[in-house]
Amino acid sequence: MNDDTNEVRPEQTVSAEAADGPEWKPVNRASTYELVIDAVEEQIMTGSLGVGDPLPAERDLATKLGVSRTSVREALRVLDSLGVVRSSGGSGRGAGTFIAAMPSAALTRFLRLHVALTNFSIDDVTETRIQLERSSAVLAATRADKDALAEVNAQLAMMDTPGISLETFNDADTAFHVAIAQAAGNQLFSDLTGAIRTSLRKSIFSSFSRVDDQQALMAKLQAQHHGIMDAITAGRAEEAAALTEEHIRFAASRLPGLSPG
Amino acid sequence: MNDDTNEVRPEQTVSAEAADGPEWKPVNRASTYELVIDAVEEQIMTGSLGVGDPLPAERDLATKLGVSRTSVREALRVLDSLGVVRSSGGSGRGAGTFIAAMPSAALTRFLRLHVALTNFSIDDVTETRIQLERSSAVLAATRADKDALAEVNAQLAMMDTPGISLETFNDADTAFHVAIAQAAGNQLFSDLTGAIRTSLRKSIFSSFSRVDDQQALMAKLQAQHHGIMDAITAGRAEEAAALTEEHIRFAASRLPGLSPG
Repeated sequence: MNDDTNEVRPEQTVSAEAADGPEWKPVNRASTYELVIDAVEEQIMTGSLGVGDPLPAERDLATKLGVSRTSVREALRVLDSLGVVRSSGGSGRGAGTFIAAMPSAALTRFLRLHVALTNFSIDDVTETRIQLERSSAVLAATRADKDALAEVNAQLAMMDTPGISLETFNDADTAFHVAIAQAAGNQLFSDLTGAIRTSLRKSIFSSFSRVDDQQALMAKLQAQHHGIMDAITAGRAEEAAALTEEHIRFAASRLPGLSPG
Repeated sequence: MNDDTNEVRPEQTVSAEAADGPEWKPVNRASTYELVIDAVEEQIMTGSLGVGDPLPAERDLATKLGVSRTSVREALRVLDSLGVVRSSGGSGRGAGTFIAAMPSAALTRFLRLHVALTNFSIDDVTETRIQLERSSAVLAATRADKDALAEVNAQLAMMDTPGISLETFNDADTAFHVAIAQAAGNQLFSDLTGAIRTSLRKSIFSSFSRVDDQQALMAKLQAQHHGIMDAITAGRAEEAAALTEEHIRFAASRLPGLSPG
């Protein structure tokens, strides 16, 4: 978290370079579009703007903030990528830009990119997955309702289908783990679990494709899935957590060369 | 994770609306700037672009991709906000746009905004913090090195300073928890912990400001911090985890009305 903020800290720079005399670096003047983001963020932080609220038209917002339409558009692109606004084209009813609540897609792209840049190693991501999914399993076993568990069961049934393709299996596998996280009833948990699992989907699929006996591995993983689900359904929280950890570690060990790309 | 992708699924829409006849909705044509993002992402995913690598100049990239410079600039703003590129102005050595590795600031902004939009409830965020920091405490107790623990100790010493202001205490408190996560040696853990703690910093500070006996609460929290640190230093992993959970739950219970803003 040393890069928690991007602030320039001139006094540190100067003292480190004191032997060569003072060094001048540009101060960190925020770009105009960043000021627009800050303005929108402030309205959100104070509660003036909430999910579903419309933003002023691009031109109006530019006038209100005293900036160019280009800067407003750039800011909206960024907020869109963060899942904070959603724009719909056209000029009819429902057109325009609205405050949105779509954190999952944004988190997934974020993690996928940073995993690919190896800012996060596969081992770190796997370890984080284990901790989050252990907790999800405990919560799901403790307090999941029937509707939530029905979705987990649907994915399980999908993977039980004889002759299912590896690709379909992999998608259902992702959905199975995400559904357990959703059954845990914690939105941040399930979004993080989903984003992490989805950021690994391609890597897992491509590694799985290189395995010799895919059917055997799928059967083994599926047996573990059933074990996890049985423990959750029976409310055996600690067992569900332990089986989840075992399952993720087993999969990682059997999918060698699991790497971004 | 139902919004895991933003794909329009026309067949579902049509069948749901079948009674009223088919309804036509615009297909989800990606904006040009999104195609530029995809192009950069592909280079990252295939490993052609890594941290520190320069991107082509805005004009060159626009020509190569057959799009406008405006679209390129919008895409770079988005990638900047995700912590994936870093632009430095000017025309000298080191000027231009480079692939960067700054996930923390991006994650912090992301979580701060979505917590404010109550896409994530404070309870969900607190529960997620507890699970991540329990794991961090276990890892830190198990394998932290002396340098990592020195940073934790430095923050502890800061909070021990007599007469310290609430604001400084709050900052050191954040840094203490982040340093433990860093000592755990898992970058994703520590970034998530840092981002979550930082996204709550304003709320915690503002709630703390309304507490009657601030000094007493600070002393109590600090005694808990010492307990956690003692357990970590002695390698008592489970105790460190239990004390961390107790500490976070205690703080949440004593900071009523802890809410975004």
